[in-house]
Parts: sequence; structure tokens; C-alpha cells
Amino acid sequence: MSDIVAQRFTRLRAEMEKTGTGLVALGPGSHMEWLAGFHPHPDERPCLLLVASEKAGFLMPALNAEAARLSSDLPMFEWADADGPNAALQAALADLFPARAGRLVLDETMRADFALLLIDALPGIERAFTDDTVGRLRAMKDDSEYRRLKASALLNDEAMKAAWAQMKPGMTETEVADLVDEHFAAHGGRVQFSIIGASENGAHPHHSTGARVLREGDAVVMDIGGRIGGYPSDMTRMAIIGEAPEGYGQIHSIVEKAVQAALAAARPGVPASTVDRAARQVIEDAGYGEYFVHRTGHGLGIDIHEPPYITASSDTVLEEGMVFSIEPGIYLPGRFGIRLEDIVILRADGPEILSALPRDAFVVRI
Amino acid sequence: MSDIVAQRFTRLRAEMEKTGTGLVALGPGSHMEWLAGFHPHPDERPCLLLVASEKAGFLMPALNAEAARLSSDLPMFEWADADGPNAALQAALADLFPARAGRLVLDETMRADFALLLIDALPGIERAFTDDTVGRLRAMKDDSEYRRLKASALLNDEAMKAAWAQMKPGMTETEVADLVDEHFAAHGGRVQFSIIGASENGAHPHHSTGARVLREGDAVVMDIGGRIGGYPSDMTRMAIIGEAPEGYGQIHSIVEKAVQAALAAARPGVPASTVDRAARQVIEDAGYGEYFVHRTGHGLGIDIHEPPYITASSDTVLEEGMVFSIEPGIYLPGRFGIRLEDIVILRADGPEILSALPRDAFVVRI
Repeated sequence: MSDIVAQRFTRLRAEMEKTGTGLVALGPGSHMEWLAGFHPHPDERPCLLLVASEKAGFLMPALNAEAARLSSDLPMFEWADADGPNAALQAALADLFPARAGRLVLDETMRADFALLLIDALPGIERAFTDDTVGRLRAMKDDSEYRRLKASALLNDEAMKAAWAQMKPGMTETEVADLVDEHFAAHGGRVQFSIIGASENGAHPHHSTGARVLREGDAVVMDIGGRIGGYPSDMTRMAIIGEAPEGYGQIHSIVEKAVQAALAAARPGVPASTVDRAARQVIEDAGYGEYFVHRTGHGLGIDIHEPPYITASSDTVLEEGMVFSIEPGIYLPGRFGIRLEDIVILRADGPEILSALPRDAFVVRI
Repeated sequence: MSDIVAQRFTRLRAEMEKTGTGLVALGPGSHMEWLAGFHPHPDERPCLLLVASEKAGFLMPALNAEAARLSSDLPMFEWADADGPNAALQAALADLFPARAGRLVLDETMRADFALLLIDALPGIERAFTDDTVGRLRAMKDDSEYRRLKASALLNDEAMKAAWAQMKPGMTETEVADLVDEHFAAHGGRVQFSIIGASENGAHPHHSTGARVLREGDAVVMDIGGRIGGYPSDMTRMAIIGEAPEGYGQIHSIVEKAVQAALAAARPGVPASTVDRAARQVIEDAGYGEYFVHRTGHGLGIDIHEPPYITASSDTVLEEGMVFSIEPGIYLPGRFGIRLEDIVILRADGPEILSALPRDAFVVRI
């Protein structure tokens, strides 16, 4: 077990004790990756990392066991396709979790059939998701994670600028996305997603980038993310093709003020809902509350969306080291949308923005 | 609602009636894609397609609703980030599923938190996964699906041949995988996975393609899949670099006989376990039973792994139109692995292989 994996197990067991958790079960995915330093090929074969107060081990499909042993020295309770996972799961629970006392914490992202296999094997157990154990720990980044997120954000800045430098009327949204992809690929990264939404398309927060041709007078939402060194980026900026559409400047400045209000509200010890409220209040006060249709932000780490979530109903209290987005937006159906998004790490005295790129709209001269 | 979507709803409701199913709940993913013709951006926000005997509708995050309406005219029970999904789910269940009678069928691939949200909202309901409803229907392909799977298999043949034509000693596994990627990309497809495993690496069925350099005397497992027209391919062939390793020819011919035995056993009305048994028997009789560590096959459709699964413990009965892999293998730790895999569609008189490429090992002349 590497030092970092050993440290994370120790921190997790401290959280388990604090929260009365007897067993944590993680599926092949980001939680397992964070804790164990790897995860096997995820498929429909039940595969779980089971962590109890003293012992831990894997429920492991036999055909992944040999490769998994190269990455972990934890015991593997193997099962073959011919037998199915039930007997191996019973053996694992008998060995690792004989007391069957305390909460069962389930990886909320695991497949439903994995979760129900375990729930059915532990009838009557109190269950919870990872919010106050693995999720909480993952939300607070250590220095090595900070450095990778920062490097990823700076590459994102460059990908955005590369697209800006080549955008022009007549190009499709997809062609703009290709410019972003190419920049990530040419610099050792890999694009993770891109939402390029021209004018009316930008009014859909989750628009699928498509064949819409950029025209003079378009306001273009550019929400892009890549990955390098195992960690992602996520940033939204606006581009204007020539002359901005009517009313653009006023809306942009409302969204910018909302970002600044959220930045000013984000401090260790403050509930995440307070940060959402700060951004939302600015937009509501300006009369556009009904057009800000999503939460203010989400955590970013191994996953592009992870705790903490910055929502009106969140009861998460922000802590030093948490990394999350601040991304208010105003979406005017049929006209345009404006979203401005930065990723921040929360320091003792407030948020540090990872990107170095100003939030002003970039104007494509034509 | 398109004709194909309407037909699929009708077929699903017939299966629901046969199986005593009151409600089918699908998450954003392949089941939803198959039934509704689309699925929204999957993330941590609960999103479900709920199908009851008379009515159907979506539990839908508000920020995806407008885009979803472009793809479906079913009612959307929307929820905003500020409120969370509970009230919208209650409204959806009250409207769509007032009787609360019959089984709840859950998409086994949905996130655990989505499934438990629904289970907690329907206390005491009998639950099942999709095996005998959506899963069964998806396993039997219609003509349009067959044509796309066939085209995808033929592109895979060409990608394999393109890699063979350029492989040589000194190249890494990753460089071979790159040749496959490039061929898919150059012909309008996209690689989905590739396992390139030289000699001892090929003895891990799920080896991660890496920096291992190909050398004279290597036996190389090449398990590759791409996607074109929305449908995937999946095929495994062997390549030999110069002279085959000792004992190779004998093992290859055992695996080939296992493939042929499985092909001969696969007929409509036969249990999937019989096909697994046929392949396994050949390998056991040859004395290598302990080295065939996985099932004989899996279904292939929108997903690369989907029902029917061809395993020793499967109680699936094969039906005309089902598409699945036949892929026995023998894995000799530290030496080499041999797997031969073809995708077939089951016709009234037996399986039709989609690939046109013989299963002989390709010899790279050096």
C-alpha cells in the first residue's frame, strides 16, 4: 500500500468512527480510484471495495483479480462468471465485517444492481451515501491535487485562447469545439466535454454542440473542460462575433456581479447554500431570477462533478481546501445565454481562482 | 413519438403485462436510449423515465427539460437544483402510477442513489431488474439494428487488418492500439476499447494495453471494438510475431474447436448455459478447464456488454434475433493467452457470424 493510499484509509477510518459507519462499499469508479489508487475495468460484474473498521478487501470478478493484485495488496474475494458473486460476497462480509454494526455507506455512483446485492445481503442495516465520509474527504484537496488542478486550469485557459484566436463567422459550433480538442491533445491533455452554444443555443445550459453556424451578432457560450495529469478543468467564458446582441452588456455585467458576490461569500465555515444565495440574490435583484435555472456550482476533483455542490438546499459547510465552481448564468430563451464559470480552491481567507483568464467577453473582430 | 419509439413502448407494455410489472424506471443510459430514442446528459441529478401500464413520463432536472422536450413529447416532472427531486418524484408517481400495483422494474445500470430514491418512495414494492422486460426486448435485434451491427463488424475487420499490415517488432502495444484507433477514425467510426496483450500480458483477459514492446516470438491478443452508426463492434483475433511460442498451435486449435462447439450449440430455444457448456467442455476435455476463466459470451447492441450473457449459470433461453459474442479463451500465466471472439446473430437455423475475417492467427513476417 502506498503512503498516500495508507493515509487516505486512515483518514477514512477516522470519518467512519465519527459518523458511526461500520462498512463503506465503493464501486469501480472515482471513489475507489481516490481511496485505493486504482479501479478495475468497470462492467456489469459486481466489484466492490469493502472497508470496515479493522479490515478491508475487494469483492472481485476472477478475471480482473490478477491485474488488480498488481495495484493492491488487499485481500480479494474472487468470484467466477460460472458461480456468480453471492458466495464470494458472503465470505467477504463474514471475514471483513463480522459484527455487522454501524451504518452501511454506499458509493452513490455505483450501479443499482451492485448496491442492491449488498443491501439484500445486509437486511435491516442503516444506509447512507458517502457525503460525510469519502465525499467529504475527497472535497478537501491536498497539495498534490491542487497542483494538478491548477495545471489543468491553465491548460484550459490556453485551449480557450486557441479557439478564440481562430473563431470566425461561418464556422460551426462543432468546428469551434474541434479547435479546443486539438489544443488539449497537442499539449498532452484530452478534452472531457465542450458546450459551444451560439446565441439561442446558449440559452440551453446543457446545449449539445452542433452544426449551427456562427454569425455576426452571436453571443457564444463556451464551457470547456479537459484533463491532464489525471485531473480535469472546467471553465466557461463568452465570445461575441462582431457586434454584441442587444442587451448583452447589461446581462453580462449582472452575471459578473453574481460571480463576484459568490466569491465574496465563500469562506471556510460558511454553508454552501449561502454562496448560492449570494449569486442568486444579485440576479434576482436585477429581475432575472427566473432565468438562472441551475445551481451556482459543483466540486471538481477526479470527477468533473463531485461534492461540494453549491445549491440553495445544500447543508454542506465549506472547508479550507475544497475546490468547486462558481458559475451563475442567465438564459433568455430564443435570444442568448450568458454563463461565467471559474474553479476556485477555498483558502483560509477566501477563494483562490485557478484560471488566470479574465471573465470579460472575447470579441471576435470581423 | 416516432414509429420506432411507439412500437417499443407497445412491446414493453406487453412484456410488463406478462411479467406483472407495474412500473419500469430507466436512468439516462442505454435502456432509455433504446426505448425513448434519446437520453439526457447523465450526471448526478436524478433523471428517470417512468413507464406505467397506461402513462409514462420523465422525472427531469429542470436544466435539461427544454432540450429533452426537443426529443420527447412525454410529460416532464421537472425539479430545480434549489428544491431537489423529491416533490417532483411524488407528483410523477401520483400521476403515472396511482395504483402502485405490480412489480417495480429498475434499470440495473442506474446510479445507486437514483434507485434508492425510487425504492424509498415505494416502500414494500416487489422489485426486479430489466432481464425479462427491457433487457429481453433489447436482446432481440430488429433489422435496422442488424444492419448497423453488421456494418460495424465489417469496419472492425478492416481496422484489424490495418493494424496487422503495419505491426512489427519494436512497436509497443499502445502503438498497435493507435493504428486501430486511426483506422476507425479515418472511416467515420470511433474506437471504443482495445486490448492489445503481448504474450504474458495476453494471459490477463482484461489486460491494459501498455508500453510492452513486441518481440519476435510473441503471441498477441487483439480484442478491439469501435462504433459507427450508433452501434458497436467487438472482435478478438491473434497475431504472431514471426515464430509462434512453443505450444501455441495446439492451444489455438483447442480454442477454435471451442468456438465451433459453441456455434453448433447455439439455436433458438436452447438455454444460454448450454452454449457456455459446449465451449467449456472442449477446453476441459483438452485439460485446460482451469485456464478458461470467464464466460463464453455477452450480448452486444447499443452497449458493448448487454443481455444475453452466455454463462454457466444463466437461465436465459436464446431466441431468434439475439446478438451475442462467442469468445472462449485459454490463459497460461506468464506465457500467453489465446482468445477468439466473434459476434453472431441467432437465426432460426443457427448463428450467423457478423465478421468476415477468418479466426486464424495472423503471422507478422519478420
